[in-house]
Amino acid sequence: MAKKREGQKGRYAYQGIERIMHEKARLSILTSLLTRPSGLRFSDLKQLCSLTDGNLSRHINVLEEEGLIEVEKSFNGKRPQTQCCLTETGRERFLAYLQELERVVRDAAVASKTHAPRKTKLATAT
Amino acid sequence: MAKKREGQKGRYAYQGIERIMHEKARLSILTSLLTRPSGLRFSDLKQLCSLTDGNLSRHINVLEEEGLIEVEKSFNGKRPQTQCCLTETGRERFLAYLQELERVVRDAAVASKTHAPRKTKLATAT
Repeated sequence: MAKKREGQKGRYAYQGIERIMHEKARLSILTSLLTRPSGLRFSDLKQLCSLTDGNLSRHINVLEEEGLIEVEKSFNGKRPQTQCCLTETGRERFLAYLQELERVVRDAAVASKTHAPRKTKLATAT
Repeated sequence: MAKKREGQKGRYAYQGIERIMHEKARLSILTSLLTRPSGLRFSDLKQLCSLTDGNLSRHINVLEEEGLIEVEKSFNGKRPQTQCCLTETGRERFLAYLQELERVVRDAAVASKTHAPRKTKLATAT
């Protein structure tokens, strides 16, 4: 038993889940940007992620400082515009993070299929 | 375009991601417990999730207060033992949360398949 437990050490630790991308709002922003390689304007991101101006700004700063996204400020006539897009590093790190998230879902799907079948089942379990 | 954007409002907001379960350590604990409906001892959880005593205790308290897990304290001879297991509510809420997580992975998989194919691809995209 002790041996079995030893083999399971860190089995569900999911070290690949980087907290910086795991934060809910940032996860929304990164997924939105992954779907639009050409980038998204601040106003579109705000809509897609249902975030307030303040929250979105704050999270954009964090992601930019980490080098995950690039922010370009320009003018459309007199109106300032902010355009965000994933960096190459950002894309790679986010995809690696998502692979770990997939592992969580798979582990849970196996468990929910194996034990006590109920109404709520994960799609990947079927 | 304005109309299209309107239809996409909150498209990537993922409201079903409940922060209480989304926290990395708690996600580990809940997934571990989902795989063991009979529950897990504190020492086993600690191993499986690679958490310190202090961290695990803290997160167990949060999950218990939220009604997601049940904690039973007993004695094995003179040694105190703590056993944790998911409550019925906890199981249901965690499975609902996981379904939302699956949505994130699916959205990202579609995006990573559609745009700029690279080495790192999500399994569900293939």
